[in-house]
Amino acid sequence: MNDVISQYSVKEQPYYRSVTDEVALYEAAYSVRMPMMLKGPTGCGKTRFVEYMAWKLGKPLITVACNEDMTASDLVGRFLLDASGTRWQDGPLAIAARHGAICYLDEVVEARQDTTVVIHPLTDARRVLPLEKKGELIQAHPDFQLVISYNPGYQSLMKDLKQSTKQRFGALDFNYPDHEIETEIVSHETRVSQDVASKLVSIAERARNLKGHGLDEGISTRMLIYAGSLIASGVDPMSACRMTLVRPITDDPDMRDALDAAVSTFF
Amino acid sequence: MNDVISQYSVKEQPYYRSVTDEVALYEAAYSVRMPMMLKGPTGCGKTRFVEYMAWKLGKPLITVACNEDMTASDLVGRFLLDASGTRWQDGPLAIAARHGAICYLDEVVEARQDTTVVIHPLTDARRVLPLEKKGELIQAHPDFQLVISYNPGYQSLMKDLKQSTKQRFGALDFNYPDHEIETEIVSHETRVSQDVASKLVSIAERARNLKGHGLDEGISTRMLIYAGSLIASGVDPMSACRMTLVRPITDDPDMRDALDAAVSTFF
Amino acid sequence: MNDVISQYSVKEQPYYRSVTDEVALYEAAYSVRMPMMLKGPTGCGKTRFVEYMAWKLGKPLITVACNEDMTASDLVGRFLLDASGTRWQDGPLAIAARHGAICYLDEVVEARQDTTVVIHPLTDARRVLPLEKKGELIQAHPDFQLVISYNPGYQSLMKDLKQSTKQRFGALDFNYPDHEIETEIVSHETRVSQDVASKLVSIAERARNLKGHGLDEGISTRMLIYAGSLIASGVDPMSACRMTLVRPITDDPDMRDALDAAVSTFF
Amino acid sequence: MNDVISQYSVKEQPYYRSVTDEVALYEAAYSVRMPMMLKGPTGCGKTRFVEYMAWKLGKPLITVACNEDMTASDLVGRFLLDASGTRWQDGPLAIAARHGAICYLDEVVEARQDTTVVIHPLTDARRVLPLEKKGELIQAHPDFQLVISYNPGYQSLMKDLKQSTKQRFGALDFNYPDHEIETEIVSHETRVSQDVASKLVSIAERARNLKGHGLDEGISTRMLIYAGSLIASGVDPMSACRMTLVRPITDDPDMRDALDAAVSTFF
Amino acid sequence: MNDVISQYSVKEQPYYRSVTDEVALYEAAYSVRMPMMLKGPTGCGKTRFVEYMAWKLGKPLITVACNEDMTASDLVGRFLLDASGTRWQDGPLAIAARHGAICYLDEVVEARQDTTVVIHPLTDARRVLPLEKKGELIQAHPDFQLVISYNPGYQSLMKDLKQSTKQRFGALDFNYPDHEIETEIVSHETRVSQDVASKLVSIAERARNLKGHGLDEGISTRMLIYAGSLIASGVDPMSACRMTLVRPITDDPDMRDALDAAVSTFF
Amino acid sequence: MNDVISQYSVKEQPYYRSVTDEVALYEAAYSVRMPMMLKGPTGCGKTRFVEYMAWKLGKPLITVACNEDMTASDLVGRFLLDASGTRWQDGPLAIAARHGAICYLDEVVEARQDTTVVIHPLTDARRVLPLEKKGELIQAHPDFQLVISYNPGYQSLMKDLKQSTKQRFGALDFNYPDHEIETEIVSHETRVSQDVASKLVSIAERARNLKGHGLDEGISTRMLIYAGSLIASGVDPMSACRMTLVRPITDDPDMRDALDAAVSTFF
Repeated sequence: MNDVISQYSVKEQPYYRSVTDEVALYEAAYSVRMPMMLKGPTGCGKTRFVEYMAWKLGKPLITVACNEDMTASDLVGRFLLDASGTRWQDGPLAIAARHGAICYLDEVVEARQDTTVVIHPLTDARRVLPLEKKGELIQAHPDFQLVISYNPGYQSLMKDLKQSTKQRFGALDFNYPDHEIETEIVSHETRVSQDVASKLVSIAERARNLKGHGLDEGISTRMLIYAGSLIASGVDPMSACRMTLVRPITDDPDMRDALDAAVSTFF
Repeated sequence: MNDVISQYSVKEQPYYRSVTDEVALYEAAYSVRMPMMLKGPTGCGKTRFVEYMAWKLGKPLITVACNEDMTASDLVGRFLLDASGTRWQDGPLAIAARHGAICYLDEVVEARQDTTVVIHPLTDARRVLPLEKKGELIQAHPDFQLVISYNPGYQSLMKDLKQSTKQRFGALDFNYPDHEIETEIVSHETRVSQDVASKLVSIAERARNLKGHGLDEGISTRMLIYAGSLIASGVDPMSACRMTLVRPITDDPDMRDALDAAVSTFF
Repeated sequence: MNDVISQYSVKEQPYYRSVTDEVALYEAAYSVRMPMMLKGPTGCGKTRFVEYMAWKLGKPLITVACNEDMTASDLVGRFLLDASGTRWQDGPLAIAARHGAICYLDEVVEARQDTTVVIHPLTDARRVLPLEKKGELIQAHPDFQLVISYNPGYQSLMKDLKQSTKQRFGALDFNYPDHEIETEIVSHETRVSQDVASKLVSIAERARNLKGHGLDEGISTRMLIYAGSLIASGVDPMSACRMTLVRPITDDPDMRDALDAAVSTFF
Repeated sequence: MNDVISQYSVKEQPYYRSVTDEVALYEAAYSVRMPMMLKGPTGCGKTRFVEYMAWKLGKPLITVACNEDMTASDLVGRFLLDASGTRWQDGPLAIAARHGAICYLDEVVEARQDTTVVIHPLTDARRVLPLEKKGELIQAHPDFQLVISYNPGYQSLMKDLKQSTKQRFGALDFNYPDHEIETEIVSHETRVSQDVASKLVSIAERARNLKGHGLDEGISTRMLIYAGSLIASGVDPMSACRMTLVRPITDDPDMRDALDAAVSTFF
Repeated sequence: MNDVISQYSVKEQPYYRSVTDEVALYEAAYSVRMPMMLKGPTGCGKTRFVEYMAWKLGKPLITVACNEDMTASDLVGRFLLDASGTRWQDGPLAIAARHGAICYLDEVVEARQDTTVVIHPLTDARRVLPLEKKGELIQAHPDFQLVISYNPGYQSLMKDLKQSTKQRFGALDFNYPDHEIETEIVSHETRVSQDVASKLVSIAERARNLKGHGLDEGISTRMLIYAGSLIASGVDPMSACRMTLVRPITDDPDMRDALDAAVSTFF
Repeated sequence: MNDVISQYSVKEQPYYRSVTDEVALYEAAYSVRMPMMLKGPTGCGKTRFVEYMAWKLGKPLITVACNEDMTASDLVGRFLLDASGTRWQDGPLAIAARHGAICYLDEVVEARQDTTVVIHPLTDARRVLPLEKKGELIQAHPDFQLVISYNPGYQSLMKDLKQSTKQRFGALDFNYPDHEIETEIVSHETRVSQDVASKLVSIAERARNLKGHGLDEGISTRMLIYAGSLIASGVDPMSACRMTLVRPITDDPDMRDALDAAVSTFF
């Protein structure tokens, strides 16, 4: 593994609490280098999972946060001007394909179509990446795998993956973990007691029931970890929850009251 | 055949299972260098067919995944800055026209009009490609042929080929193969038994009947090969099918139930 | 005639079958260097006519396929970076004006307004082309003439030439030729018998009656030549017609049946 | 007058037939360097008038055909890369302001707002042109004058000059000349007899009555000169009129019949 | 004051006829370097006022005509390529902030949001201009002040300043001056008699009553000065008024008649 | 602290009047490097608060005024051309992440999605900033913190932060301070008497009640400071209030009357 790629290796084991058989299924998919799609709501652990798998499989991981202003060149690469003329700079996808990393395109549905189409030749039997501007055809490294994340809650007529893209991926569903597991995660990550962590999870569960009834998204595991870490650093639980669980996600006074009430039920 | 073009030659015979007389018709079309349009749903084998024909005809194949952010320059070429000033870099279409490759524009309907208009002079009696920015007129190599793919399911008022483009192509229809042939393909590609392959095809056939009734597209042959390869690597068939045939194409709970039921009928 | 322009000379007499007095009228228009507009449906022979006239008049011909992503610079020229700094590269319109070619802007209505406005000073008494970026005013060569093509069927509120553009041109109407003449053309171009050619023309005539009743455009002469050349190379007429006359222009099952029936009436 | 500007001097007296007191009024406006707006339909002689005035006043004339893709830089200038780095290239407006030419912006209403706003500081008491990219403030040459043309028929909610632009100009109205004068013009420009010229003018007068009743614009003086020059070169009058007066401006069969009838009334 | 900025000093006292206490209020605002917004209709003297104040305060004045195609870089500056690499070129706002000029953004509401947001850090207690592309933070010169003009008549849902921008400015209202003062201005600027000037003002007053009843804007003081200067150079008053007061602002025949009648009432 | 970053240190203690426990909560959030979102109306002191906290924590502060024309490169950095080829220039976000500053994105909701997505990897456990164009992965400095401001009044369907962005931040609400505290602030900042300051606050309170009833926003603390500083420099209070509290925020005559009446009630 050379210098370009070594900065992307996952040096320490990321904390990941397995929920069902997702680790085994991912390993089987990787064994046939099947492109994978991780589906689930924001903040439920998709990114952590792919980091964990990269660590477990001993492969470098290149993560790209997709967005609607990203061009195909941002993924594939471009020519840069050098003292001696133009020099080709591989983009993250080309680096991954060339050196055998796992390439993780986070929130791929945000990207423009040229981004999603550019991955097609990497996701069928050919496993190639044409660098059209350079006139080179990269044959993907045997270790290369493509992973994308996808939040079904964002799906809309305007922004959805094309069927011809979707069909190129195996898919794993993710969701917020069960009460006990989520409690364990929050406690592990923030060092608050199991009791405090359990209360935080209970608040989140109430909020998740409000999704679609005035809240666009529920409270995520990530937000609970924020609340927990403030509590662990001495902030009183009511203030910590208001600051991390309520204020960030809604400005509606009724919804704030409902969520504040949920917080005071437990603290 | 020089270096630029040799990387595009199809070195090994691609597996292609002929369905009707499409191979002979394509050969006749190629004999008069007629531009060809391959029509059919995603994942039914159009790309594999053109690879097979390129191999059979002994011609290099240059494939371009079209997208709405692709410019005419991406096809035709551009000037790059070099140590000694600007240097012209042929785009894939120019390489194909100059050196006598088959140029395959995949999902051409996704491209902007400047892409589709740029191919006009290559698809009439003149068979030329004007490199306007370079002031050069490429007379196409005698071996050059243009092939485009087209998914009629995508046709819409907003995105369709212009009549003046369509009329420049002969057209071949593609569809998913018959049960027996598709079983043979899945079994050949994944090494699962004929029996398992046949069951997978049966599941696909049920899903294809749901197209237009809640599914945008049916399950493609490519997806069956994904399922088969997971099964062949030891994943249990129910999990393999959920992961490769159901989860990728729908998030609708009812549709998932219907497809899961179809899977459990056979496994 | 120098090197830049000589590649645009029409070396061999193009086959053109005159229909009425269009050749004489064009010659008169050229004698006063009147800009010309050729009107008619796609594939009826406008491009071939202008090639024939260029050959007959002994003038080089520079053809530009217009499209909505083409900029004024694509026509007029631009600065390129060279070893010794920037170098001006004439665009096709500037080459034609400077060296005395006929410049043919195909499907001009597809172009953006900056393309159509750029031709204004070349189409009035001044006959100049200002290269504003270069600060040069090209006085058109005495042999220079501008020709545009225009498909009235495409006319729409969104895309039409401005009146101030239209008024700068003399206009000639084109249409598909009469049965006998079109038969002669198809037979001449494909080497099929007069009998087969006549049948192909009859099929086209039926389809042209369907224009506006489910077909956007009829079957063009160019498509008949495709069908004929497949038949001449041994493909059975039914397959050849399906592949070149029916499949390319419609995916509607009823329309396909109607056209297939027309084909089997004659073959 | 140096080399840059001398190519813009009007060397020969352009033929211009004065209609009323427009020449004297323009001279008075020029004497106070008032910016001028020439209003009138397409092809009625606005461009010829400004050429004539430039000749009469002995000032160079720089004409710019405005369009919606023109940028402020196209008018003002830009940096170009040279062997020794960047070099500033004055745009046509900067050349005119610096060297004292009349700058004529043809069809200014087509331009984007940055074009029209860029002329503001040149059209008030300051008479300056800031080259913001160069950090230079050009104080206009005493001879500089700005002239714009404006076709009221094009006015629409979407495209109109801003009031703050309009108020910076004195305005002269133009229209097609009276029968006698227009006959004199057509005869002078084409060398056809007064009789033939008079007939052509009569045809135009009929068509102009149809403006707004199926025709967007009437037949302009420029079109009559086209017709006359074809007749003068031996084309029969009916064909010449069809080709230059009827076919270019309408594809509507009824309107064509009406115009053809008008032609046969006189020839 | 160095060379870059000295070209922006107002060398001669501009003629400005004070209307109320606007000069004193502006001086107070400048004494605390409060950013100022000058509100009022087009051509009523806002630009002249700021030139006068710059002269009175002895500060250089940099004026920028805003438009919707202007980018933040046009204000702030950009890198240019030089013989020895890139060189930073301050934009007009950066020059003003660095060297202590009054920067006047004319018709700021026309600009895109990046222009208006770029001025925020210059208009609060920080008085800084971040040159993000250069990585420099300009601390505004103590003499620097920002002034913008704003025509309330242009306000629309689509184009209005954001509240967070408006709140950063003190505002002064401007309007056309009273009869006597405006007469004095017209007479002073054109050298016509007080009597003729008074008549011109009376015509303008009639037209201003038509604003909103068929006229978008009334006749401005600037237009009266145009009329006066033509009369002073010998043009008859009726022609001069038609050319400068009526024709430029309306093409509606009824409105032209009404305005022409107003003109003949006085001349 | 090196040169690049030292220019961003807050040298003098900014005046900030604490309202509730926001300082302590922010310190707790900073202690766990939680990204923070400051919510509240324009001009209520969010920017001042973050400056105060940066000073109190002894960290440099890099402020970016977000806008819809800002690209990801404006935040992250870009390659610039140098005498010896291209040179990477860190953007403000990269400088902050690399050197350990607090990065404050003001009015982040104005930015395009690529700006908001670019901050994602900096706001989860990874705390990295991928410089994709440079192929570098910045591991954020331990002192780095991200702060954004957000005006809930601007929220609309078109422009709102994505849930996946919101959930990455703890949030603090800001509003205009209570009468007594705001009086103290105005008096402190302008040196007017407590009495005058109190009157100004009373005027603002009346205007804030009109928010949503004809006023888009109320009168902010910043505007009161403008009014106070004019009064302190000798302008009469009525004129000062009209100029700074009334004219800038409304052109509606009724609303102006209402606000002028409120002013005269107190002065």
